[in-house]
Amino acid sequence: MSIIPGFSRGLFVSGGSVANMTGLMAARHAVLKDRIDGATVYLSDQTHSSVERALRVIGFSREQIRKLESDRNFRLSIKTLRAAIADDRRAGLRPFCIVANAGTTNTGAVDPLSELADLAAKEKLWLHVDGAFGAASILSKRGREMLDGLDRADSLTLDPHKWLFQSFECGCVLVRDAAILKSAFKIKADYLRDVYRETEEINPCDYGIQLTRSFRALKVWLSLQTFGVAAFRQAITRGFELAELAERELRARKGCEILSPAQMATVCFRFGKSDELQTRLVDVMMKDGYALLTSTELRGAVALRLCTINPRTTEEDIVETVKRLDRFARQ
Amino acid sequence: MSIIPGFSRGLFVSGGSVANMTGLMAARHAVLKDRIDGATVYLSDQTHSSVERALRVIGFSREQIRKLESDRNFRLSIKTLRAAIADDRRAGLRPFCIVANAGTTNTGAVDPLSELADLAAKEKLWLHVDGAFGAASILSKRGREMLDGLDRADSLTLDPHKWLFQSFECGCVLVRDAAILKSAFKIKADYLRDVYRETEEINPCDYGIQLTRSFRALKVWLSLQTFGVAAFRQAITRGFELAELAERELRARKGCEILSPAQMATVCFRFGKSDELQTRLVDVMMKDGYALLTSTELRGAVALRLCTINPRTTEEDIVETVKRLDRFARQ
Repeated sequence: MSIIPGFSRGLFVSGGSVANMTGLMAARHAVLKDRIDGATVYLSDQTHSSVERALRVIGFSREQIRKLESDRNFRLSIKTLRAAIADDRRAGLRPFCIVANAGTTNTGAVDPLSELADLAAKEKLWLHVDGAFGAASILSKRGREMLDGLDRADSLTLDPHKWLFQSFECGCVLVRDAAILKSAFKIKADYLRDVYRETEEINPCDYGIQLTRSFRALKVWLSLQTFGVAAFRQAITRGFELAELAERELRARKGCEILSPAQMATVCFRFGKSDELQTRLVDVMMKDGYALLTSTELRGAVALRLCTINPRTTEEDIVETVKRLDRFARQ
Repeated sequence: MSIIPGFSRGLFVSGGSVANMTGLMAARHAVLKDRIDGATVYLSDQTHSSVERALRVIGFSREQIRKLESDRNFRLSIKTLRAAIADDRRAGLRPFCIVANAGTTNTGAVDPLSELADLAAKEKLWLHVDGAFGAASILSKRGREMLDGLDRADSLTLDPHKWLFQSFECGCVLVRDAAILKSAFKIKADYLRDVYRETEEINPCDYGIQLTRSFRALKVWLSLQTFGVAAFRQAITRGFELAELAERELRARKGCEILSPAQMATVCFRFGKSDELQTRLVDVMMKDGYALLTSTELRGAVALRLCTINPRTTEEDIVETVKRLDRFARQ
């Protein structure tokens, strides 16, 4: 995965959930020596639910997870974060980890990675970045600008089955220091003694929860060899552009409000004011069959959400989707 | 998975490691309400390493894991277990779970499931059974006799990619009460609100760590439909018989000692007395290319191990393998 600067090694896993769990295990092991009590972790209210679930699985209680209100651009606020860490230190707790987003699922928002890396360094916290969706966009010029500071994370989740166009299941966790992963996970089985006689060999089962595993790296490698990195760059850039096209088309429709502008190939919006209408539009579009769109919640309001990373989506698809949405909204 | 009596529901996962983790999460949640401190868990020294790793991942320290010496048949000793639980209760600790084996990887040993279920009920402990390898054999008459009491476990690991002849990755965890799994794992994501509008629907992502997932059940279901359960029964029975044939052939060779007789299609043995010879035999056989055998450690001594569950293995393969082993041992 040397296409992502700053990370020397990682592990292919089933998807973002296990990738996040693996990165957070590294954090728990490196910073806390696996001692959980009194430790606290910081993330924004836009963080993917799998992060909270992973934290619960590896032993943290709800009370140890600081879910901080995001700013008006749906980003983790440095000011809020700094205050929360200071509060916890005063209370005798042990802050150990910041989880940042490189492209949230809801809106594509990117937390201020560079400033978060500064803060993490100053406070001696682990910085885990959930870039399951957005990190791959670093291959493109647009993504590289948005992801400034990504290379300073201690661990990073990146799902090739998202914006690297791979088939399920293909998640990935990257780390700066592979020795920490190994120390966190390695357990020797008697019956695997033949495997461990070759001490120089890298055994993926030492770096995560899974032992027997399929060869996930193969498809990523093959498609990079076949299409070349340039094709990936282009397809990612196209995702950005299609969301921007969608935003322009939506803004041109009366009664449509943009709740979060196009970023990382994601745009959120609503027609009219009622939550019921948005939910109805999801169902009507599903029944119509032309396009699939989903809804989410942004600050308590139901929002419609278009994510335009499918490399087979055309400009015409986007224009026609907005046209239909507009028509259904007025019915 | 209604082919395994006693279990109403479960989840397909990547393999035994995640299945064990999922079952143990259910135990942690049901018995401890996720409060880890002072809790203790009991297992034999023959338990698969993935169980210890899963316990570490979900927050338990090495000091909370009682790895008990197995009896002369490599089984968890009820007497030793009872004493360990009593000791811990006296010390103010909180025993919460017994992990039993339904076919260990090393020797195929089956812990005394029925007595363990009695003890677990009496002590109000969770009984997790790791049957990753052996549980599927319950389809056969031989397996059913050996696995008496399996249906009384609270959770069970069973890997269809082992003795149900499926391709990787196909693990499975079965539970008596699915509501516990759901309560342990369910976390709602805003952007999945469309998924949760249908409240009656079962979403596998609510019952384990993984969200996006491949359709693992399909291949199991298809092969059961295609070949029928009887074919599976027969193939499993054949696995038992081939290991017994191997044992007979090995006993007929001078200088070969049976360290664990054929059970659950597994037989352990050694030629001569030196550990080095066994390790050399693994390498020589690998180089020879006729058969793959592996070594393990039993009570500190290196043992060779044949596992005969491959449905394409023939009696001739077994006879010839032993013949070659014998020849190489004398070279």
